[in-house]
Amino acid sequence: MGADAQEIGRLIDERGVDEAALELHRRLRGKVAVQPKAPLSDETLELLYTPGVGAVSRQLADDAAAARELTGRGNAVAVVSDGSAVLGLGDEGPVAALPVLEGKALLFRALAGIDAVPLALDVDGVDAFVAAVCALAPSFGAINLEDVAAPDCFAIERRLRDALDVPVIHDDQHGTAVVVLAALINAARVTGRELADARVVIVGAGAGGAATARLLRAHGVSRLVVTDSHGALGPRRDDLDDAKRSLVDDLGLDAEGDVGELARDADVLIGLSVPEAFSVDDVGAMADDGIVLALANPQPEVDPDEAGRAGAAVICTGRSDYPNQVNNVLAFPGLFRGALDAEAEEVGEAVLLRAAQALADLVERPDPQSILPGVLDERVVPAVAAAVAGRR
Amino acid sequence: MGADAQEIGRLIDERGVDEAALELHRRLRGKVAVQPKAPLSDETLELLYTPGVGAVSRQLADDAAAARELTGRGNAVAVVSDGSAVLGLGDEGPVAALPVLEGKALLFRALAGIDAVPLALDVDGVDAFVAAVCALAPSFGAINLEDVAAPDCFAIERRLRDALDVPVIHDDQHGTAVVVLAALINAARVTGRELADARVVIVGAGAGGAATARLLRAHGVSRLVVTDSHGALGPRRDDLDDAKRSLVDDLGLDAEGDVGELARDADVLIGLSVPEAFSVDDVGAMADDGIVLALANPQPEVDPDEAGRAGAAVICTGRSDYPNQVNNVLAFPGLFRGALDAEAEEVGEAVLLRAAQALADLVERPDPQSILPGVLDERVVPAVAAAVAGRR
Repeated sequence: MGADAQEIGRLIDERGVDEAALELHRRLRGKVAVQPKAPLSDETLELLYTPGVGAVSRQLADDAAAARELTGRGNAVAVVSDGSAVLGLGDEGPVAALPVLEGKALLFRALAGIDAVPLALDVDGVDAFVAAVCALAPSFGAINLEDVAAPDCFAIERRLRDALDVPVIHDDQHGTAVVVLAALINAARVTGRELADARVVIVGAGAGGAATARLLRAHGVSRLVVTDSHGALGPRRDDLDDAKRSLVDDLGLDAEGDVGELARDADVLIGLSVPEAFSVDDVGAMADDGIVLALANPQPEVDPDEAGRAGAAVICTGRSDYPNQVNNVLAFPGLFRGALDAEAEEVGEAVLLRAAQALADLVERPDPQSILPGVLDERVVPAVAAAVAGRR
Repeated sequence: MGADAQEIGRLIDERGVDEAALELHRRLRGKVAVQPKAPLSDETLELLYTPGVGAVSRQLADDAAAARELTGRGNAVAVVSDGSAVLGLGDEGPVAALPVLEGKALLFRALAGIDAVPLALDVDGVDAFVAAVCALAPSFGAINLEDVAAPDCFAIERRLRDALDVPVIHDDQHGTAVVVLAALINAARVTGRELADARVVIVGAGAGGAATARLLRAHGVSRLVVTDSHGALGPRRDDLDDAKRSLVDDLGLDAEGDVGELARDADVLIGLSVPEAFSVDDVGAMADDGIVLALANPQPEVDPDEAGRAGAAVICTGRSDYPNQVNNVLAFPGLFRGALDAEAEEVGEAVLLRAAQALADLVERPDPQSILPGVLDERVVPAVAAAVAGRR
């Protein structure tokens, strides 16, 4: 396959990550393959295709729920995007999202044994997106929404949850929120804080910021501020869309001011935004031993080394080349594995809280350089899945 | 996996095909799996997911056509049904179609190395079906429509072909037509006929019947009659839907009468209908050394042994336990393999004619018991694919 670790390491050294990535994608032409689960023979043809499949179709016509026993539905996840928020790139269209979706499909199988299908959707608007996912739902036991722009992502997820009887999880919202909460649980232990009393500022009110705010509140974080590019969200802002207005109402947000003002004496500063959305000076103005999550990717909001020199005690980024990588890979494989195992019809806030706690608990002795398990730590998926399925 | 040929053979002997099929489906829980094409490591994670995938997404945002080189799109086929015509069962809904779609996905990979995704669609009506397939098209290099009822299947296929720049093939139409034509080419050789002059009666004017009629005419069959359950299609029938009326107009059909009348002196009688749509007496009334294709499945229109005793020289069915099995497996893997290899934007009549001839040519010395290659004959897919791609 030309993809062994050593050769790839050389490729990265020689040509840099971007060129190496393009080269590996060219070699693979897709990251996942669809493979038979039984060898082909006259006998399997007779039972799995014609005429044997007729008996199976008749049974399913009588009892659609038997699809869980008789088809691959119970282990299948649709990984769906319209390409409206591809990575940090913006609205680049469905084809640009396809390699991201394929990457997730690879991870779903490799980490959680899930059959995930990358489906880049050519749709325009919320109604068309919802209609397309509802149309393709019969083949799947769960739906993973990916790289869908705010605020449409909120309406799409809500409407799909209402319409479908399988879990619908927008990973950029809830996967992110779970890993951020897990990181905060352990960062609070390391810095001797109670999250319930900590002053937490979330910079960014898009998919990740909004969902993180809601999950932190559900965890008991009371002193919570959320900002967008125009400052703190609050009841006196008259420029908010419906999604941000709901966030203000639901969480009782009432701060005012810009990031520079709000960072002062903050215990936790969480960037789910863009590079330079806050500065080293903002970090310096935080309370002693502050916790900084600078999660813009691949370029964090603030340089992590400078943030450390400015006094932050714990620093997390989205990058693999710094300590404390906050990566959704820690959440989504286990979330979906657990949801499929439990035959869940939805994944709600209580489940997400359990998943975050399970993830945090995997680090027995967190220290400032080691807040989260590694992304390929084999304990992660079983622990998260067990928490989701309610087995712990 | 519990699916080796010997064990399955025993299972069939002990419990019959239907029960054995249900048991094997229960064991497998889906016939295909989604598998990584590269091993997971820190290095592959870096290149295939974050941050490396960003460079690939950026390239695709600039040039969507590069998806053929950088993603799995060029080898991916969506196998799509709304469940409106599941096997011989009728409109049983999408979930009942799922095991059929999975079976085809298994065959696509095992026979032709294609990544095929079973997608059972919950849609109501032509517009919704077309919208759903257009929405999911960006991930796929071709679309296989399956088990879609006539007459909607004609409009759905036509509109999708207009809307999409990848091949859209309704297998129940064109796969069937290709294999029937291949069988007729060799049956004509065996019985010393010229197809151009032969009197051919097609019993059944649904998806398979209509497409077969069109392909036979394109091959040069001039004396063609098509019947539905009310008799021959012709200009004086005032009960025809638009699809049947188009067939009459396009092919200049002008016969009258019922199957019993039309079978008299027919050279070829093709059943693409239901059991007992014609009788042994009808076969007996045919010209000497008649050719009978009784393709209703699993129960042919007429018992093949009785048809032989009534004078038919060549008899084909859809069944694997009689000689001369007419099975779409002989066509669709090669049709799609060739279309993907050629990066075709459509698969038209000329291509289908070449595919049928290639399939017929694989049987060097056809005899009445051996008109077509076996369904697992390894020469079939390369030969059909080469014909489709214009490499022969």
